[in-house]
Amino acid sequence: MKLLKVDTIDEARRKIADAVKEKGRKTVKKGILDAVGYVLAEDICCSEPVPAFRRSTVDGYAVRSLDTGGASENMPVFLKITGEVQMGCPAEMKLHAGECVYVPTGGMVPDGADAMVMVEFCELFSSEEAAVYKAVSCGAYVVQAGEDMKAGEAVLKRGRKIRPQEAGALAALGITGVQVYEPFCISIISTGDELVSPQEAPSPGQVRDINTYGLHALALKLNFRIQHETVLRDDRTLLKNTVKSFMPDSDIVVVSGGSSQGKKDVTASVIEEIASEGVFTHGLALKPGKPTITGYDEPSGTLLLGLPGHPAAAMMVFEILAGWLWRELTGEKEAFGITAVMSTNLPSAPGRQTCQLVKLKKEEDGQNVAVPVLGSSGLITILTKADGYVITGEHAEGLKKGEQVTVYLF
Amino acid sequence: MKLLKVDTIDEARRKIADAVKEKGRKTVKKGILDAVGYVLAEDICCSEPVPAFRRSTVDGYAVRSLDTGGASENMPVFLKITGEVQMGCPAEMKLHAGECVYVPTGGMVPDGADAMVMVEFCELFSSEEAAVYKAVSCGAYVVQAGEDMKAGEAVLKRGRKIRPQEAGALAALGITGVQVYEPFCISIISTGDELVSPQEAPSPGQVRDINTYGLHALALKLNFRIQHETVLRDDRTLLKNTVKSFMPDSDIVVVSGGSSQGKKDVTASVIEEIASEGVFTHGLALKPGKPTITGYDEPSGTLLLGLPGHPAAAMMVFEILAGWLWRELTGEKEAFGITAVMSTNLPSAPGRQTCQLVKLKKEEDGQNVAVPVLGSSGLITILTKADGYVITGEHAEGLKKGEQVTVYLF
Repeated sequence: MKLLKVDTIDEARRKIADAVKEKGRKTVKKGILDAVGYVLAEDICCSEPVPAFRRSTVDGYAVRSLDTGGASENMPVFLKITGEVQMGCPAEMKLHAGECVYVPTGGMVPDGADAMVMVEFCELFSSEEAAVYKAVSCGAYVVQAGEDMKAGEAVLKRGRKIRPQEAGALAALGITGVQVYEPFCISIISTGDELVSPQEAPSPGQVRDINTYGLHALALKLNFRIQHETVLRDDRTLLKNTVKSFMPDSDIVVVSGGSSQGKKDVTASVIEEIASEGVFTHGLALKPGKPTITGYDEPSGTLLLGLPGHPAAAMMVFEILAGWLWRELTGEKEAFGITAVMSTNLPSAPGRQTCQLVKLKKEEDGQNVAVPVLGSSGLITILTKADGYVITGEHAEGLKKGEQVTVYLF
Repeated sequence: MKLLKVDTIDEARRKIADAVKEKGRKTVKKGILDAVGYVLAEDICCSEPVPAFRRSTVDGYAVRSLDTGGASENMPVFLKITGEVQMGCPAEMKLHAGECVYVPTGGMVPDGADAMVMVEFCELFSSEEAAVYKAVSCGAYVVQAGEDMKAGEAVLKRGRKIRPQEAGALAALGITGVQVYEPFCISIISTGDELVSPQEAPSPGQVRDINTYGLHALALKLNFRIQHETVLRDDRTLLKNTVKSFMPDSDIVVVSGGSSQGKKDVTASVIEEIASEGVFTHGLALKPGKPTITGYDEPSGTLLLGLPGHPAAAMMVFEILAGWLWRELTGEKEAFGITAVMSTNLPSAPGRQTCQLVKLKKEEDGQNVAVPVLGSSGLITILTKADGYVITGEHAEGLKKGEQVTVYLF
């Protein structure tokens, strides 16, 4: 084995991004409803103005605003009713001075009119004449053609994660399918002579496999896909053959090993042997997360990721590396962190960044408070008790009570 | 038609919750990976301690801490090596005074030992004797049996939304399936003579249907299911028959009509006629969202929801009423709002609450700033530009620049 290459989070991220970047991400076409949760791989331009015509935002009369000048509750102006616009139909009339036309909400405002008066401010004297009790200014209660989206405008940019409202905007544009980035295909290998499946009753010394489940669910939450999944005994040849067999159709092969030195060495040496570019990072200067190993195989385009055996550490490092890499490749924005203040002093590990789990509480004054969730990273319950995590710098002396931090929900 | 029953958000919510509550939510059993995103309908208790045995958190030697008293870099203590624990196997030896046993990370700590010494602080003199260069205290580097979860402890409570870490915790407990609440079954009816599907080219006066897509995607985001979906011409009999045909297998039938008075009246009168409990709310004191109608049919257990035709208003009201009702029935916590300060003054509508869309920006000092996204609620792009929304009180005079607000991501 070569010497350990202990990296900071930034160094480890940079190395995997540099390796993987060249290949880029494949894209796939999805219908607009199926595309929700995916990340746009193209800019979406508006080919026609939305709305395509001037629409009324109220039930009322289309008027020339000049004609309503001086109208008030005591002093109406009288306009000649020359027609009524039907929903879904063009306004075929043209409005002249002294005229008005009834238009329902969402209906087309006829040419010649430049404003709407709400029906509440109008009174019919006959089917041919309306009294208008309010002066309106030009453009009142009218959505202009192109006010929602202008022709030629880049409405949604590459890297945008598609939410329900983006699906609505695409429908408005008449776009029924978009190019999105293909999710990472993840394969998960958990190793350990001590592991039994959740269905089994563990004998003394055995524990149930947590990581396969936690990492599987986390990968799905990040909108990745699971390609393969297996639990292996501790056996170097078995591990090597399994990783190799998963590489051709996986973007990332995750090996969640035990955290003992012997096991870490096996994972690192298998990655070093298999990956064309060898091991990039052997040890992350992060608490928890030290026994993290990364490597890259160029021919198959597979990132190999050795994660700590401790469940909380494994899930946090997966999010910090694989979640970040996804955003780096697709341009997706990081989720908005929640600003909070620390409830207590918290020392940090010297020379290492710390990924501290916290629970959030809202004080009566609206202030969010981050309360550290303490315990070994081998405990799964520290993750279930936490709302998110805070990352402190490697040179920080720790966090002080009352200090402002950004909490990333987890 | 009866008089309008204009309600505040709280009044409208309370009425639908009171009506729907009695029925309760059905539950369904899901495998732990399929259950992610669902809400637990039962408390999960731990039937056995996790871990079931004392585990080492390091590679090293199990010792009696008393034996290491006074050990230091210059003055080791010498202990007799009496064995080695294998991963996944019980520690069958018992440790006596002056003895130590090798245990890998995660391995079982033998009886008689009360602490671990990291291998880095030990030196082997022979296969039978180790020098220990560090004193450790009782419990050092040992996870106690039950430290993660105690037998009998309620680990996860009803109402908890299952995240990846909860799936991991369930795996650790040997639980492979849990009872979760069955999602709402939603049927969506969009009405309007002016509507054409996104595939079609609208003629003058016509617009593409946005609401069916936006509401469909939003319902899925809230982890609801879509039961039926259709677009109807404006026709009272057609609307009535369609709502009736959707009621037997829907929890909520949503009618997203136009916003014109005539259409609102039709939706309200259809709900009044069909629903055994009639119309609860006819008009929401919310900007935007006024043309909102709610009603309940007891025999079929269906909530009828008439939403504004404006896309942004329809989606916000759906989230505010249906999203809230789901949390009320299941005990799911509301997502943590982001604390921010307003970038500018913002007047509110007198006597009404305002649901104001905002974009979030992070200042250099870490402070989040909420910038209002302005425009008619008929525009879909105001939703795509927004990160979330702020709700102001009905009696508030508006929001002041620099005022602290809670932003709900959307």
